Amino acid sequence: MKEQIFTEIDTLGKAKIESKVKFKVFVEDDERVLYRVDANYVEKCIKEGNKPISFEKAGPRKKIFFDPSKTRCAVVTCGGLSPGLNDVIRAIVLELYYIYNVKNIVGIKFGLQGFIPEYGHDVLYLEPSNVRDIHQKGGTILGTSRGKQSIEEIVDSLERMNINILFMIGGDGTLTAAYKIYEEISKRGLKISVIGIPKTIDNDIHMVDKTFGFDTAVDIAARVILGAHSEATGAYNGVGIVKVMGRVSGFIAAAATLSLKDVNFCLVPEIDFDLYGEHGLLAALKERLTQRRHAVIVVAEGAGQKFFNVKINPNSHENPKLGDIGKFLKEKIEEEFKKENFPVTIKYIDPSYYIRSIPANSSDHILCGYLAQMAVHAGMAGKTGMVVSYLNNQFLHVPIKEVIKKRKMLDSEGELWMAVLQSTGQPPLKNK
Amino acid sequence: MKEQIFTEIDTLGKAKIESKVKFKVFVEDDERVLYRVDANYVEKCIKEGNKPISFEKAGPRKKIFFDPSKTRCAVVTCGGLSPGLNDVIRAIVLELYYIYNVKNIVGIKFGLQGFIPEYGHDVLYLEPSNVRDIHQKGGTILGTSRGKQSIEEIVDSLERMNINILFMIGGDGTLTAAYKIYEEISKRGLKISVIGIPKTIDNDIHMVDKTFGFDTAVDIAARVILGAHSEATGAYNGVGIVKVMGRVSGFIAAAATLSLKDVNFCLVPEIDFDLYGEHGLLAALKERLTQRRHAVIVVAEGAGQKFFNVKINPNSHENPKLGDIGKFLKEKIEEEFKKENFPVTIKYIDPSYYIRSIPANSSDHILCGYLAQMAVHAGMAGKTGMVVSYLNNQFLHVPIKEVIKKRKMLDSEGELWMAVLQSTGQPPLKNK
Amino acid sequence: MKEQIFTEIDTLGKAKIESKVKFKVFVEDDERVLYRVDANYVEKCIKEGNKPISFEKAGPRKKIFFDPSKTRCAVVTCGGLSPGLNDVIRAIVLELYYIYNVKNIVGIKFGLQGFIPEYGHDVLYLEPSNVRDIHQKGGTILGTSRGKQSIEEIVDSLERMNINILFMIGGDGTLTAAYKIYEEISKRGLKISVIGIPKTIDNDIHMVDKTFGFDTAVDIAARVILGAHSEATGAYNGVGIVKVMGRVSGFIAAAATLSLKDVNFCLVPEIDFDLYGEHGLLAALKERLTQRRHAVIVVAEGAGQKFFNVKINPNSHENPKLGDIGKFLKEKIEEEFKKENFPVTIKYIDPSYYIRSIPANSSDHILCGYLAQMAVHAGMAGKTGMVVSYLNNQFLHVPIKEVIKKRKMLDSEGELWMAVLQSTGQPPLKNK
Amino acid sequence: MKEQIFTEIDTLGKAKIESKVKFKVFVEDDERVLYRVDANYVEKCIKEGNKPISFEKAGPRKKIFFDPSKTRCAVVTCGGLSPGLNDVIRAIVLELYYIYNVKNIVGIKFGLQGFIPEYGHDVLYLEPSNVRDIHQKGGTILGTSRGKQSIEEIVDSLERMNINILFMIGGDGTLTAAYKIYEEISKRGLKISVIGIPKTIDNDIHMVDKTFGFDTAVDIAARVILGAHSEATGAYNGVGIVKVMGRVSGFIAAAATLSLKDVNFCLVPEIDFDLYGEHGLLAALKERLTQRRHAVIVVAEGAGQKFFNVKINPNSHENPKLGDIGKFLKEKIEEEFKKENFPVTIKYIDPSYYIRSIPANSSDHILCGYLAQMAVHAGMAGKTGMVVSYLNNQFLHVPIKEVIKKRKMLDSEGELWMAVLQSTGQPPLKNK
Repeated sequence: MKEQIFTEIDTLGKAKIESKVKFKVFVEDDERVLYRVDANYVEKCIKEGNKPISFEKAGPRKKIFFDPSKTRCAVVTCGGLSPGLNDVIRAIVLELYYIYNVKNIVGIKFGLQGFIPEYGHDVLYLEPSNVRDIHQKGGTILGTSRGKQSIEEIVDSLERMNINILFMIGGDGTLTAAYKIYEEISKRGLKISVIGIPKTIDNDIHMVDKTFGFDTAVDIAARVILGAHSEATGAYNGVGIVKVMGRVSGFIAAAATLSLKDVNFCLVPEIDFDLYGEHGLLAALKERLTQRRHAVIVVAEGAGQKFFNVKINPNSHENPKLGDIGKFLKEKIEEEFKKENFPVTIKYIDPSYYIRSIPANSSDHILCGYLAQMAVHAGMAGKTGMVVSYLNNQFLHVPIKEVIKKRKMLDSEGELWMAVLQSTGQPPLKNK
Repeated sequence: MKEQIFTEIDTLGKAKIESKVKFKVFVEDDERVLYRVDANYVEKCIKEGNKPISFEKAGPRKKIFFDPSKTRCAVVTCGGLSPGLNDVIRAIVLELYYIYNVKNIVGIKFGLQGFIPEYGHDVLYLEPSNVRDIHQKGGTILGTSRGKQSIEEIVDSLERMNINILFMIGGDGTLTAAYKIYEEISKRGLKISVIGIPKTIDNDIHMVDKTFGFDTAVDIAARVILGAHSEATGAYNGVGIVKVMGRVSGFIAAAATLSLKDVNFCLVPEIDFDLYGEHGLLAALKERLTQRRHAVIVVAEGAGQKFFNVKINPNSHENPKLGDIGKFLKEKIEEEFKKENFPVTIKYIDPSYYIRSIPANSSDHILCGYLAQMAVHAGMAGKTGMVVSYLNNQFLHVPIKEVIKKRKMLDSEGELWMAVLQSTGQPPLKNK
Repeated sequence: MKEQIFTEIDTLGKAKIESKVKFKVFVEDDERVLYRVDANYVEKCIKEGNKPISFEKAGPRKKIFFDPSKTRCAVVTCGGLSPGLNDVIRAIVLELYYIYNVKNIVGIKFGLQGFIPEYGHDVLYLEPSNVRDIHQKGGTILGTSRGKQSIEEIVDSLERMNINILFMIGGDGTLTAAYKIYEEISKRGLKISVIGIPKTIDNDIHMVDKTFGFDTAVDIAARVILGAHSEATGAYNGVGIVKVMGRVSGFIAAAATLSLKDVNFCLVPEIDFDLYGEHGLLAALKERLTQRRHAVIVVAEGAGQKFFNVKINPNSHENPKLGDIGKFLKEKIEEEFKKENFPVTIKYIDPSYYIRSIPANSSDHILCGYLAQMAVHAGMAGKTGMVVSYLNNQFLHVPIKEVIKKRKMLDSEGELWMAVLQSTGQPPLKNK
Repeated sequence: MKEQIFTEIDTLGKAKIESKVKFKVFVEDDERVLYRVDANYVEKCIKEGNKPISFEKAGPRKKIFFDPSKTRCAVVTCGGLSPGLNDVIRAIVLELYYIYNVKNIVGIKFGLQGFIPEYGHDVLYLEPSNVRDIHQKGGTILGTSRGKQSIEEIVDSLERMNINILFMIGGDGTLTAAYKIYEEISKRGLKISVIGIPKTIDNDIHMVDKTFGFDTAVDIAARVILGAHSEATGAYNGVGIVKVMGRVSGFIAAAATLSLKDVNFCLVPEIDFDLYGEHGLLAALKERLTQRRHAVIVVAEGAGQKFFNVKINPNSHENPKLGDIGKFLKEKIEEEFKKENFPVTIKYIDPSYYIRSIPANSSDHILCGYLAQMAVHAGMAGKTGMVVSYLNNQFLHVPIKEVIKKRKMLDSEGELWMAVLQSTGQPPLKNK
């Protein structure tokens, strides 16, 4: 039960400059927030002389490390789109500019490519006038890209550009790169802070309760599923199948199922299911159709990959190409029911990128604003090698090293999945 | 210039019963509306002693044919979903029930299948209590199906069920069936009125300016395209491709292009285009990317079918299986640009059924209400073999025979396509 | 039956310059569109040797009047907001810039005030880069104002700024000003074209079927009414009252009623109603509540002004201050039912400016684009003293003089009001 | 630091029946969740031998108190509407019916009135078929009412109807009534469980992080404010004022401000402000207008009540009639600026009931589902005198007695208000 160690946040040095942020209340570095809220566990832990895991609380510090007038910041967005990217960019810029009086902010174009000279992407100078309304748009004004780039070249580039704080907005792969950049910076003895803002529409980042964009994605996914429900009820033995995002985790599928309440089968990567056999999906689907004459199936893109012999390692940062489980299900259902002379009409909807390319909803607008403000507070205070996390209704500093250790996944015995089972009424879909 | 003949509407006999509809104003049978509003043409026509094409005006008649207390009506919805189907069902029921006092209304389940005993679908008794709120839902509460059924069996079924008025809501294929049913009814000398309400999300029905559901579909298509635009701008040489409905006509693609204004290439079935060569799409796309680094392509599902050797006969009622032009474009662009070492990031979105399965927007709510009311007025007056059409901002009676003669298509020299070209700035995309 | 005279469009002189607009098809000046589509009327008219009213068809002309490289245009938006104002500004600029190659475009700030030096408003130079995305926003980037300004000073200003074409986007009052500006220009013998684009969220402009923004407004109004319906059904004898725009005409109220279908009483300026007495609103409301225990009332702001002794002259361009009919109804219903010991819970919603300040929906995006393009075609061709009208599904040139003659109003015997009565089931609400 | 006492949940007796709920995991009664997540506080507390406040974890229990086949439940909704009421009703019914096999569920009509015979409201029998789609509608199918009713008569009624579990969905006043009902039941020695589900669109319930409906309300409020922003920017010195809900707390105002990011002044009940004087709102507004020529003010309905001499006691359950602060501000600004000859155009929008009468968004759909399920688990387990609370991302049991002790209010030194100040840039608005 010695778990407290990893939660220490690295800093570039002692913060000595008096912050001019006009706040009544500053957060002290020793203010910490418990990771687990289980009272018995926490009590036991303490009574046994251990410290329960806790995180540094995010927020403005009285003393800051960087002198605003001499500070240069960079913002980069990496990986796939997620609703709210522009909100985060905007809020970082406004917070730096108006609250900390840092006027020198560059946007790195097209993800990590923007650091590599051979791509030839110019930087974008960021200031209030060119970020004012961007939160009303989907996507990212900085552009993004996937794929690895040389860590050395990135740090060379940071040095060349005299960047003091680097804000990296990205998912698992990006945060892994962020960690390596942070290590390279340390090795070189540079005073460059690396602050991550976790971005994953799948909401599967370890030690983060909710990532930005997730709420919006669920909203849209639910609307699409509603359409699939209309299609299903509109046909005799009508089946609507919707594939949603979720490579290793089924959070979008599960939440959309709970939102819409018209889903009969929710298939996620974490929960294995069989197709054939007495207790397989096809048998359960047939029973459902026989009783109600329509059915809606929501499937996360990473579900059922065993049918394609694709192995997903949730804790790897590789992205193997997935089999198209939605199309597969459609074909198998049609094939099998045809054999059984059981007429069925299947409509398959794959909204794909539509779900992630829209502007943030109100809840995500707010979340993004906070994350960005907290990131700026942390960066200005000289913190580094960390991400801002929203956990237990609080904003926290979590070492990057910890969040990239593994993916958050749906717990097959947890509240969320229990609620899904209650909502869908689906059986275990597993033969012995 | 003798065009007036085909516009006469057939009736089951002389309408003799005094209507109890409490309207200040009734429409007379000889009130007619001009088809073409070109003043010069009309004047020339009349001066030469011909009658310009005109249609019977829709609306309540002073004398009706069917005795409300003894009338039994049937409603059937056929073919693919379109926003507003439930609005039409609802408004037919409420108009019959409250305005004409006809209480005996049956809903035929799952399209024409519902008439064929072997399918075993029960009818659904329709009354205000079970249609009250259905307009707020997508789909059709009656269900639908595709495919032909025996005309004789359908008419047998109408006889057996003692139906007096049959309201058929469907597209080209359904209206063709409606016409045959009408003919069979005539042959048997039955007093059954057949009233069609044209339904096509593609808005490609001849002699109809706007079909219900189209406006809603364009609304959603535009939102999806906005997402594709975010994806395109979010990548270096980003290309967003969206496939929208439109088998033989590009009205949704064109209207969504005009709505969103961020589309760079709009590809429709009516306008041929080349892929390769100096003036082909790929060259034009490359130029666009070189200048602006992102591009949005909207493609109707029926566009570019020559690449698959699929022949589409716009005036046939067959639906040949289309090649997936969206996927094809994605692959060809990737392939070609890879050869040329021109990096490109393509995101392909196929919203498919999502576009047609949502509830109607306000404008379609209103249109559906009118179409249904006019259909009921026509049916009660003993009209038959006709559809209700919205044309020149008026509601009209058009013989089914005429509307199924050919499809409405986008005029390559018309205002709509000119506006699309202005909005996209796209070149002709054709080599010599 | 001599009605053709007023439809001639004035021009600044003979259009002599070859247009470089790359259109396959141009519109000829003698192409005309019939105003009335009643076949019998038109035939009678022609047979009697008269010409039925018709309008010049809008569209690009082969010959234009202004030399693009030397042309300077001004755009001004006046009066209240309407969804789509920014769409119109944007499309005028893009059409001038890209299609006609006119690069010199100024936006006049804050309506007609922008012409008057003493207000000191600068002009805004308009070009593609600053209008690109404005259609996604409500309001007008130019700002607007109400109230009259000196016609002489406006024309002085046009002269001083060397404006060749003035695009005026505004309602009844603005068009009246436009007409006077046009007259003053003629008097001074200047070559300045004045082109109006009718703007009224109320959709009450004579000789125009649909003004931009109306469709969007109805959409939002319907959503608000849906809220009122929830409030009404949520209480015992619950009454939801929603006041919508419509000073002299009830088009928004009527259309929203038809869209939502849950309205029980629709009150409009054109149809007088009594409050008290056997057949008055209160009696009818009480009956409705007794039967169904809830009711929804939609009232146009200009309805029932007799209760405030406000006289509205629909053909005047004055805007007398209206009594708050929504609040009045709420108070009178509460007062009367209290007397009668009939418990009632009233929720009054006045969405006011919310309805007009949102961005256009797809349908309005498209309409605005067309109107602007047609306005530019007309202006470049040297037309003047006219507005672009959407009528009979066509775009037309209509002399300003004609459209300001009177307001379009809801016909108490027309299809729209009949449909409203069918939908609401409301009685005449008039004592003898 | 002895705080643990009040968190014990009362029960009707020992739960002895084996639950048939098919869950892998049940929650034990001694599982508890910490109220405060401040690690230092918790550690100190424990080390000093005290227990930090914690709550019983919600969830299904292995043993239940009521025998499903003999259990009769009642659901009642009280007070103002909030998005999600129908979701909660629906989920209670489905959970009881399908998960616990309780088929006997009655809906009490029109709030507490429904218990009082003299009102004569019938109950509504609730079953899956009549709640299936109600979550897609705003309002409450049970109706609601305000005002107190006799506790004795309510309990008489519960006895007469043989109710075993009463689910009460309502705000502060309702929960106070729930507590008294619970006390009366105890006094009479009845075995009736009283379970509350806190409902307040204002999100101001003590010991609850987020109440259902709040997220949806913020979404809509933000859209209305966006409209006000369009109005403000559309006029010279344009001021948009929006009044939102929030009698004693400014959570909606604050969250909508953070969501939209275009608000310049956010006025809430918790933070006093001056109107006149060097540092008052009028001076600050004038300065803002002078700099930017437009401003948006969001004001919670309970803000600035000192101007009306209305005293709000946040811990009282009385609802004094509030002065209309929105209208007041409009008038005072107009009056003052007129005096100063500073032209200004003010648009005041009061969306009022519109904000609370719409259907829940996805996030609220999900929250409501959980709350209802947890309430059913609690009720079936024989818990009583408690509410289900969502706190620290967990669902908990909190004694009603505790939640009604005081209102949750915006902390003037907390993160939320700091974020508001950063977003608006507003000064303290207080003279010395």
